[in-house]
Amino acid sequence: MTSTSFMRTLRRCLSAAMLLVAAAVAQAQGLPSWNDGAAKQAILKFVADVTTPGAPTFVPPAERIAVFDNDGTLWIEQPIYVQFAFALDRVKALAPKHPEWKTTPPFDAILKGDMKAFAASGEKGLMQVMAATHAGMTTEQFADTVAQWLAKARHPRFQRPYEELVYQPMLELLAYLREHGFKTFIVSGGGVEFMRVFTEKVYGIPPEQVVGSTGQLAFKMGSDGKPVLLKLAQIDLVDDHAGKPVGIQRFIGRRPILAFGNSDGDQQMLEWTAAGAGPRFMGLVHHTDAEREYAYDRASHIGRLDKALDEAKARGWTVVDMKQDWNKVFPIDK
Amino acid sequence: MTSTSFMRTLRRCLSAAMLLVAAAVAQAQGLPSWNDGAAKQAILKFVADVTTPGAPTFVPPAERIAVFDNDGTLWIEQPIYVQFAFALDRVKALAPKHPEWKTTPPFDAILKGDMKAFAASGEKGLMQVMAATHAGMTTEQFADTVAQWLAKARHPRFQRPYEELVYQPMLELLAYLREHGFKTFIVSGGGVEFMRVFTEKVYGIPPEQVVGSTGQLAFKMGSDGKPVLLKLAQIDLVDDHAGKPVGIQRFIGRRPILAFGNSDGDQQMLEWTAAGAGPRFMGLVHHTDAEREYAYDRASHIGRLDKALDEAKARGWTVVDMKQDWNKVFPIDK
Repeated sequence: MTSTSFMRTLRRCLSAAMLLVAAAVAQAQGLPSWNDGAAKQAILKFVADVTTPGAPTFVPPAERIAVFDNDGTLWIEQPIYVQFAFALDRVKALAPKHPEWKTTPPFDAILKGDMKAFAASGEKGLMQVMAATHAGMTTEQFADTVAQWLAKARHPRFQRPYEELVYQPMLELLAYLREHGFKTFIVSGGGVEFMRVFTEKVYGIPPEQVVGSTGQLAFKMGSDGKPVLLKLAQIDLVDDHAGKPVGIQRFIGRRPILAFGNSDGDQQMLEWTAAGAGPRFMGLVHHTDAEREYAYDRASHIGRLDKALDEAKARGWTVVDMKQDWNKVFPIDK
Repeated sequence: MTSTSFMRTLRRCLSAAMLLVAAAVAQAQGLPSWNDGAAKQAILKFVADVTTPGAPTFVPPAERIAVFDNDGTLWIEQPIYVQFAFALDRVKALAPKHPEWKTTPPFDAILKGDMKAFAASGEKGLMQVMAATHAGMTTEQFADTVAQWLAKARHPRFQRPYEELVYQPMLELLAYLREHGFKTFIVSGGGVEFMRVFTEKVYGIPPEQVVGSTGQLAFKMGSDGKPVLLKLAQIDLVDDHAGKPVGIQRFIGRRPILAFGNSDGDQQMLEWTAAGAGPRFMGLVHHTDAEREYAYDRASHIGRLDKALDEAKARGWTVVDMKQDWNKVFPIDK
C-alpha cells in the first residue's frame, strides 16, 4: 500500500468515525419508538448478553441469527393479507382475458365482490386463485407485476401504499440487531417471490435472507436463447406452522437465537428457537391497538394468536402489547 | 459518543489501516497459486470491472453474488463423490443392526465390496442406500455422524482427510472475491445437510450460503418437550443440471454475476448466470492433471464435462486448465 492510499484509508476511517458519532447518538436513544417497559428491557438485556465479549452468554456474530415473521409482525395483515389483496386485484386485472371466469367459481365471486361466496370456496378456491395469479409466468415477469401493483395499491383503511404500513418499532429493532452483528432473516408464510420484491428496500433484508412459501419452478430455454424460470402452480413448501422450522433448517441451516412472530403460525418457529442452548429471545407482537392499527387475537381468522399466546405466557416469552409498548406504529405516525 | 470512545474508534481505525497494508501486500501477490495466463487474467479483469466505482461495469456490493459448485470445483470428486464414500461407509457401519442386508440388494453388493453389482442396481439402488444412510435420524444426529466420519475417513489414493483435498487456487479465489465485496455461495448437487458440516470451516462459507440437494424434513416434538427435525427419505430438490438455477432462485433470489463449475451438471447454472445484464464471469475447472490430481472430462461417469465444455468454448467462458493454470492443487502441496 502506498503512503497515498494509506492516507486515503485514514481519511475514510475518520469519516467513518464521524458517522459512528452520529450512529452512537441515534443508539443512545435506544429504540425510540419503544416505550420503556418489560418488552424493551428484555430486548436490550438480550442483546447486551449475547454481545458482551467474555460473558458466559456471549454468542459469536456468525451465530447471531434473528428470524422475523412478516405479515402482522413487520407489516400490516388486516383486513386481509397484503398478498391476498394482490391476488384479488390480479384476478380483476386478468378477467378480460378470461371471459369464462364470469361464470366459473371461485372467480365469479371475486369479480362480483362477493367475498362470502369466495370464502365458501375454501382452500380449493384459494389455491385456484393463487395458481391463476402466481403461476404461468417467468419469475421476472411476476416480480415486475408485484412491483407495479405495490406502487399503485392502497390499503383500504389507511389509504397508504402497503410499503408505508410497516411497523416503525420493528424497523428500529431490525436495525438495532444488525448494528449488533445480527443477521436478520424473514421467515414468513408469504410467498418468497412476492416478498423479495420489497424486503430489501423496506426492511434492509436482501433477497437471500428471505425464507417463505415456495412454488415449483421450471428452467426453460427461451426462444431468444436466454433461459427463463417459469413459476408453476405446484406448491413446494408452505412456510407456516411446522413448515417454519423446516424452512429455517432448509434455507438457513442454523438455529436462530432470536425469533419474532405474532400468530399461532409462528409457534413452532419460536419453539424451535427456544430449544437451542444458550441465551434465546422469543417475541410475539400482540395486536391490541384498534385505534392506531387493529386489535385481534384468539378469534381472528387472520393472524390468530391463541395457542402461541398461552405458550408465551407459560414460558415467559416476550409479548409486545402494541398499544402499551409502542409510542409509534407506522413511520408516518406523528 | 464521548471523546474517549471517539479516540478508541480512531485507534481501531488505525489498526484497521495497518491490517489493510498487510492485506494489500497479500493482494499484490494476486492469486499466488494461479499461474499467469488467460484464466487468471480473466478473473482479475472481471473483479476490477465490477468493483471500480464510476465504471459503466460497476456492480453494487449487494449484487456481487458468486456461486460455486462443490464436487470437482472446490474439492476432489474422484474416484467417487465424497458423500457417496460416506454413504458406503455408513452402510458398513450400520450393517450389524441390519442382518437382512447380507442378502438384500443393493446392500449385499456393498458389504461384499462388489461395486459392479452395486452399479447394476442403478438409480433405484442408489436411492435405497441414500434413504438408509441419510434419513431416519434428526438433523443434529446426521450432522454429528458426518463430522465424526470426516474426522476419520481418508481418501483412498492420497490417504488424507477429505477436508484437506480442497483446491488451494479456489480457496484463494473465494477469499479474493470476498475481499472485493462478493458474497460467496455454494450451489451443489451434494446434500445440503452434508455440506454444511464443513463449508464454514473449510471454505469460510456459512451454512446459510450453502445451496444443495434437499430432502423432506418433519418437525416433531420430542419426548423431552424439545422439538426435533427428522430427515425423511423423500427428495425435495435435486440441485443439479436444471435444478441449479431453480436452487439459486429459490434460495438466493438474485441472479449471480459469477459462476464456477466443472461438469455438465453446472451447464444450466452457467447459462442462467450468463443471461443477466452487465458483466458476467462463467468458469469451468477442467481436470487435466493426472499426476497431481485426476484427468477426466467427456468420458467420465463422475463429473462428466462434455456439453458444457463445448458451450464454454463456443461462448468464450473461462476454462481453467488445472495442469497449466494452477501451480499448486491442494494446500498440502509444496
